[in-house]
Amino acid sequence: MTLKVYLSGEIHTDWREQITEGAEGLDVVFDAPVTDHAASDDCGVAIMGAETSKFWHDRKGAQLNAIRTRRGIEGADIVVVRFGEKYKQWNAAFDAGYAAALGKSLIVMHGSDHQHALKEVDAAALAVVDAPAQVVQILRYVLDGRLPG
Amino acid sequence: MTLKVYLSGEIHTDWREQITEGAEGLDVVFDAPVTDHAASDDCGVAIMGAETSKFWHDRKGAQLNAIRTRRGIEGADIVVVRFGEKYKQWNAAFDAGYAAALGKSLIVMHGSDHQHALKEVDAAALAVVDAPAQVVQILRYVLDGRLPG
Amino acid sequence: MTLKVYLSGEIHTDWREQITEGAEGLDVVFDAPVTDHAASDDCGVAIMGAETSKFWHDRKGAQLNAIRTRRGIEGADIVVVRFGEKYKQWNAAFDAGYAAALGKSLIVMHGSDHQHALKEVDAAALAVVDAPAQVVQILRYVLDGRLPG
Amino acid sequence: MTLKVYLSGEIHTDWREQITEGAEGLDVVFDAPVTDHAASDDCGVAIMGAETSKFWHDRKGAQLNAIRTRRGIEGADIVVVRFGEKYKQWNAAFDAGYAAALGKSLIVMHGSDHQHALKEVDAAALAVVDAPAQVVQILRYVLDGRLPG
Amino acid sequence: MTLKVYLSGEIHTDWREQITEGAEGLDVVFDAPVTDHAASDDCGVAIMGAETSKFWHDRKGAQLNAIRTRRGIEGADIVVVRFGEKYKQWNAAFDAGYAAALGKSLIVMHGSDHQHALKEVDAAALAVVDAPAQVVQILRYVLDGRLPG
Amino acid sequence: MTLKVYLSGEIHTDWREQITEGAEGLDVVFDAPVTDHAASDDCGVAIMGAETSKFWHDRKGAQLNAIRTRRGIEGADIVVVRFGEKYKQWNAAFDAGYAAALGKSLIVMHGSDHQHALKEVDAAALAVVDAPAQVVQILRYVLDGRLPG
Amino acid sequence: MTLKVYLSGEIHTDWREQITEGAEGLDVVFDAPVTDHAASDDCGVAIMGAETSKFWHDRKGAQLNAIRTRRGIEGADIVVVRFGEKYKQWNAAFDAGYAAALGKSLIVMHGSDHQHALKEVDAAALAVVDAPAQVVQILRYVLDGRLPG
Amino acid sequence: MTLKVYLSGEIHTDWREQITEGAEGLDVVFDAPVTDHAASDDCGVAIMGAETSKFWHDRKGAQLNAIRTRRGIEGADIVVVRFGEKYKQWNAAFDAGYAAALGKSLIVMHGSDHQHALKEVDAAALAVVDAPAQVVQILRYVLDGRLPG
Repeated sequence: MTLKVYLSGEIHTDWREQITEGAEGLDVVFDAPVTDHAASDDCGVAIMGAETSKFWHDRKGAQLNAIRTRRGIEGADIVVVRFGEKYKQWNAAFDAGYAAALGKSLIVMHGSDHQHALKEVDAAALAVVDAPAQVVQILRYVLDGRLPG
Repeated sequence: MTLKVYLSGEIHTDWREQITEGAEGLDVVFDAPVTDHAASDDCGVAIMGAETSKFWHDRKGAQLNAIRTRRGIEGADIVVVRFGEKYKQWNAAFDAGYAAALGKSLIVMHGSDHQHALKEVDAAALAVVDAPAQVVQILRYVLDGRLPG
Repeated sequence: MTLKVYLSGEIHTDWREQITEGAEGLDVVFDAPVTDHAASDDCGVAIMGAETSKFWHDRKGAQLNAIRTRRGIEGADIVVVRFGEKYKQWNAAFDAGYAAALGKSLIVMHGSDHQHALKEVDAAALAVVDAPAQVVQILRYVLDGRLPG
Repeated sequence: MTLKVYLSGEIHTDWREQITEGAEGLDVVFDAPVTDHAASDDCGVAIMGAETSKFWHDRKGAQLNAIRTRRGIEGADIVVVRFGEKYKQWNAAFDAGYAAALGKSLIVMHGSDHQHALKEVDAAALAVVDAPAQVVQILRYVLDGRLPG
Repeated sequence: MTLKVYLSGEIHTDWREQITEGAEGLDVVFDAPVTDHAASDDCGVAIMGAETSKFWHDRKGAQLNAIRTRRGIEGADIVVVRFGEKYKQWNAAFDAGYAAALGKSLIVMHGSDHQHALKEVDAAALAVVDAPAQVVQILRYVLDGRLPG
Repeated sequence: MTLKVYLSGEIHTDWREQITEGAEGLDVVFDAPVTDHAASDDCGVAIMGAETSKFWHDRKGAQLNAIRTRRGIEGADIVVVRFGEKYKQWNAAFDAGYAAALGKSLIVMHGSDHQHALKEVDAAALAVVDAPAQVVQILRYVLDGRLPG
Repeated sequence: MTLKVYLSGEIHTDWREQITEGAEGLDVVFDAPVTDHAASDDCGVAIMGAETSKFWHDRKGAQLNAIRTRRGIEGADIVVVRFGEKYKQWNAAFDAGYAAALGKSLIVMHGSDHQHALKEVDAAALAVVDAPAQVVQILRYVLDGRLPG
Repeated sequence: MTLKVYLSGEIHTDWREQITEGAEGLDVVFDAPVTDHAASDDCGVAIMGAETSKFWHDRKGAQLNAIRTRRGIEGADIVVVRFGEKYKQWNAAFDAGYAAALGKSLIVMHGSDHQHALKEVDAAALAVVDAPAQVVQILRYVLDGRLPG
């Protein structure tokens, strides 16, 4: 049984690639949001026409991205949500809440400086890690029972 | 049929009181998280014993608060989530995602400076407002069909 | 056990009043959308600010009305949907589909001229009638087992 | 992960073919109602015997078509509903409501003349478009993150 | 917490009265189908107009009765289904299957001569009894922990 | 998308074979209960040991058969339930109720002499037929839109 | 909104009374299994007739108790499960798993000697305590935000 | 349709191998928890860092194992839970309760000495056996209708 993993959150570093490459050979399929920032911001107006108001410009895009995001989360066995160093990242926390309400197994990844601010999100997770390599180790253990070292 | 409303998010201003007082006379019951910041942070260790690690100190508390939060959201007809000016407020976005996944009617409240950062959260909402008085107007309209002015 | 009935659809005649008055003395509570046409159209911009585009003007209002409509349908035992003589009334058919997907008991009311066009909607209903008095008779029978005449 | 798309609504133009052909090469499977108008109208009596009443003639057929429609909508990731220029098309709005209640990602397609009449249906959609090519662009973006142009 | 009990099945003896009277003083509310045989058979045509075909005559009535039956079963904590000595009673077995699929606590009542024919229905039940007094004893035990004698 | 069909009910004639053979070439997979009457009756005690009481003998078997039946119904798109000329066949009506509560598309097959007794079961069905060939015609129409003749 | 709490598990000490008395004045209603050991063991045969086999004697009783237990857990906001010093107490762990799968807020109570053996049960809980007074403190905090001391 | 079976419980004997080998040639896929006791106990700290407290050491591991366990149970058609001679095995009973609440077909395996203590768990099962060979016989019967001997 292939393990389906959705990789939500921070889009400015290569953490998704690190996980995907690290998990080579494991029976996992990965899904993720569109990580091209400009495309993600402008997809709505690019396809459905320009808006004069930034609010509706953003809404058109966010709703389009929601088609992909919801399908990814709803179809996943595990949802990994990474919080990076910068920005508000409210969409990441939103995805975590969405996944938690659906009963998905949640893995949260963040640096220790965010520990207190993320305590409610962490409290809904089955694992809290700070590095992509740990996610790979978790996937390998969950699938094959093998531990690192 | 009484309207059940859960007021999630920012705990540093009196927006909940403004809504509660504004809604006097309407058939609404309000619920909310514990808004005493210190109690909310320390409830876990206060009841279940101290922890040397901040991570587990926080987890004990966050899990205890989750008992109240989940019950409040799951029992609500409408979930209002307010984002204030400061802090990460990831728990607010988490609650919004949780409410959205359960199909609750979501109202998001925030200032215009947060508009872009909150676009995914707003896109899941049936109403986006910036002031408590607007929430009261919405509740009055939803219950009685009366508009302001 | 009080019977909860949601009255969806046409807002230009007094069919809701006929049902409500006819059902006096029965253990029924009725709910319905806001039937003040102007308020229903403009509620969104009245509370959340004007829009230059008609599309967003309408969306703001329709989303606000959805708070009431969804709660009404989700809380109902029976959803009655009436199609009048005029207009497209797509919101009525939308409500019927929404109610059907939730497994609600559906009663559809319309004149015989609409019979063929409404065949898919009728096919999801447990009763198809053409007059408000028949709805009252159904409610009385469902509650008390009494038939007319 | 193959994207499953159900194409509901208007059956008098070739919009389904335009989408299907436009989406060639994408990992999508399409489903749709029976679009042969005569077969769709008469399927019930053709298989289960004639009726003297038009109402039951239509019901037999509509219930048979419902087997296909419900399976199509329930199995879909995305439900596209197109409203054409003519006819009442209440079955299209019914399908949209059915899909919305199940939490499906809804795309609504219609000309601008229907904008006001469809506002409740549009308000439940994640995208509102007027041309089949836009649906193809959305599917490509949702699957591969590529935008037109 | 009041115990909600739906009494389905045989309508030719006074078993419902025996249970209702036996349970006096217990915190139980009972619901049941319309047990007036003639009304139950003819309710559809009495309210919605005569049919020339017996099949549609019966369908109109059965669909109307389904409004009451489904609400009764869906709202119940316990569904009691009694099979009498005579008739096919397929509606009773249908109700039992419906209740079982919803995870309701099922009590089946029948004489020993029907034991083998009802084995699949009994196998879905939490209790199988042959007399109304036993149902009363079960309700008293479930509510108050008191056993007979 | 392969159509999954569960064939419940009467086990004394070859109606399942007629449907399976008639549907050759269609994208359908069929499932059914164990139709070997003796095996079905005795499976419980054959595997888990003899019982002195007929009631528990039957219960052991019925529970074992329920593993197969529930999986078959829960996994099906369409549940066909056939009522034969003889016996009580309460398990068939139970399966129909179970399928109806799960929202499965239900097809009921029976001779006209059972019409009145099966009216509640028929009222939950999307098609009522009397011959296996009609089921094949329905499957062909649902899958390919082709009508007989 | 009254808090509904189900008290599962050990029946040999007065921990339920300690919680009930400690929670006086709070808006809580408690439910629990029948705690009269003999009645609980023999309820099935007392009402439905003796069995020669201990296995069926026990099954009759356990199924009857399940009517009360499932209703209690399904209706609860919070499920408290206490493991005492003695016995296998598999029914307590079963109730904890049942509650966890339904998404109930779970509080587990046990002495430190059982910590390792209960780690999977504890891992599904939002709070792990060892004394009834802590449960009271949690209920008070969840309802009123007040902490001890 | 491949039968998916999750093998929960005791990890000190080769009962899983006996079932897997006995079921060779049947269309079954098996899943199970990690059965390497040391890995299962220490997986959390091995991947996410050491803990000074045994409670959190165990929690980290138990939550990690829960990712695999929940996926296994939720994806299964049949959940087999074996209770061995020794230890508390509360996780086995927890899994049984979890599976029961999800409506999975439950098979419980244990020796006769545990019969009374497991009566609530057994009462939720569709089959109770004491040997792995019986599970194989059940799987063969459920899939192919063949009985032993």
